[in-house]
Amino acid sequence: MSTDGKTPMFERVALVGIGLIGSSLARVIRREGLAREIVVSTRRAETLARARELGLGDAYEQDAGKAVEGADLVVVSVPVGSSGAVAQAIGPHLAPGAIVSDVGSVKADVVRQMAPHLPPHVHFVPAHPVAGTEHSGPDAGFAELFENKWCILTPPTGTDEAAVEKLLAFWRACGSKVETMTPEHHDLVLAITSHIPHLMAYNIVGTAADLEMVTASEVIKFSAGGFRDFTRIAASDPTMWRDVFLHNKEAVLEMLGRFIEDLFVLQRAIRFGDGDTLFEHFTETRAIRRGILDIGQDTAAPDFGRGPKKS
Amino acid sequence: MSTDGKTPMFERVALVGIGLIGSSLARVIRREGLAREIVVSTRRAETLARARELGLGDAYEQDAGKAVEGADLVVVSVPVGSSGAVAQAIGPHLAPGAIVSDVGSVKADVVRQMAPHLPPHVHFVPAHPVAGTEHSGPDAGFAELFENKWCILTPPTGTDEAAVEKLLAFWRACGSKVETMTPEHHDLVLAITSHIPHLMAYNIVGTAADLEMVTASEVIKFSAGGFRDFTRIAASDPTMWRDVFLHNKEAVLEMLGRFIEDLFVLQRAIRFGDGDTLFEHFTETRAIRRGILDIGQDTAAPDFGRGPKKS
Repeated sequence: MSTDGKTPMFERVALVGIGLIGSSLARVIRREGLAREIVVSTRRAETLARARELGLGDAYEQDAGKAVEGADLVVVSVPVGSSGAVAQAIGPHLAPGAIVSDVGSVKADVVRQMAPHLPPHVHFVPAHPVAGTEHSGPDAGFAELFENKWCILTPPTGTDEAAVEKLLAFWRACGSKVETMTPEHHDLVLAITSHIPHLMAYNIVGTAADLEMVTASEVIKFSAGGFRDFTRIAASDPTMWRDVFLHNKEAVLEMLGRFIEDLFVLQRAIRFGDGDTLFEHFTETRAIRRGILDIGQDTAAPDFGRGPKKS
Repeated sequence: MSTDGKTPMFERVALVGIGLIGSSLARVIRREGLAREIVVSTRRAETLARARELGLGDAYEQDAGKAVEGADLVVVSVPVGSSGAVAQAIGPHLAPGAIVSDVGSVKADVVRQMAPHLPPHVHFVPAHPVAGTEHSGPDAGFAELFENKWCILTPPTGTDEAAVEKLLAFWRACGSKVETMTPEHHDLVLAITSHIPHLMAYNIVGTAADLEMVTASEVIKFSAGGFRDFTRIAASDPTMWRDVFLHNKEAVLEMLGRFIEDLFVLQRAIRFGDGDTLFEHFTETRAIRRGILDIGQDTAAPDFGRGPKKS
């Protein structure tokens, strides 16, 4: 449709799942003219109706199998626990030569779920755009979501190189920086950079909610001291995150074990008044922060104390 | 000095300690004309020289005792572990009727440290402005730091009511919302809303830095998935935070014990694939977030995925 004379990268892109990521993809594909046609598919009739109201696609199909027919790119954007069922549903309908990808926050398990259902005549290139907000659903998406964010591809060995290159080019066109690695390594990296932080945030907000000596309204009122940032992360989509933890179990438990060991060292230092251990630990962590500022992944603007009027 | 014809609230304010909080106070006191004279005191000669270069006060004293002479308001803004030593140094020099306050993140222990050294002819009204950034030192301060932030006063029973009212008015004039409570309750509230979140942030950044299977540069590169927000908190001043944990030991250990118990429930749910427990937990935490948005302590703008260009 909106190709402005350019030849679009794909003829027909099928987006299976139209939440935050799927609907952001729909918007950026349209803006950049990356496909001649966008087919939107989602299982729930009311979500599909909402996608239609928002004008996210050119065609709408509740049946994922029908949606992928004739598509040369299929992107599955569903909670990772549903990946296998979606692959089974779309497998028989995939066109020869189609690139099949996903956006799951977990990769090894998604490959295990999806690969057996995909015919040999398609190219399966799993992907994970490391981008998101604490909001969910088709209304939450925006075309700029992937800008300057990393997208990690984890193609199984033996995957057609042209297909990988094409998907890399697609994500670059969506604004992302791209990287490839093995699914297993991806899962370890994301366990520590994303999954464990989310678990901590969910946990501390839960602990706070259950206190009997401090009321929820006090917690809310005095949240500016650090807690508030955790509540934002802990407002993320529960279904998505349940599935992340269930399907990246090994890496999450490994990282969690290390986190707890380290926490016991700090707990012991507090109990025995060992200020040197605390000071040393609190100093080391600054180097990582400097690294993040150095490569422009965040700004040094004092954000901690941000008030309502600033954002 | 800068009183614009108004009678300033105080004749002479002595600021002992001129870091992030002390220097922000100096700036807002000046801007609002809250004192006829500001005396800045800090132990390190080079910090005092820097305060002078920044023009933060009207007079500068390395000796805290000299600084407080003739002051009708003294605000001690030092790491809480130094509160007792500062009280001892200033005690004999305090003017009759002076209000003596502090800004420490811990209150019961600060009262224990300071009260014995203060003469009966002064009014001791401990305070805690719940405001800060991850930056420290006299250059980090700004006059707007306290705007719309809470300041909690914890006057011991029997404190002169006029002195408490005057300090409440002072903090309101600095832009704060004010609240009073007991030191012990303050320490529980802040343990969960601030101290434990900081400990988690310090700990997870430390765990990430020590991994052998994921490099620090990978952690830095892919930090946008949640980890980045923790690194900001974990970049906070190590001396201040060492002292917070050492001096709010009981409340921190109590909250940490609860946090760890709750974490083990989630860990077990992950290990045994109990998705219902995870989902239920991840849903409950949203209510707290809604509460924070409802009272305007944060905005719903999707901040999680913020990129370099947005802030």
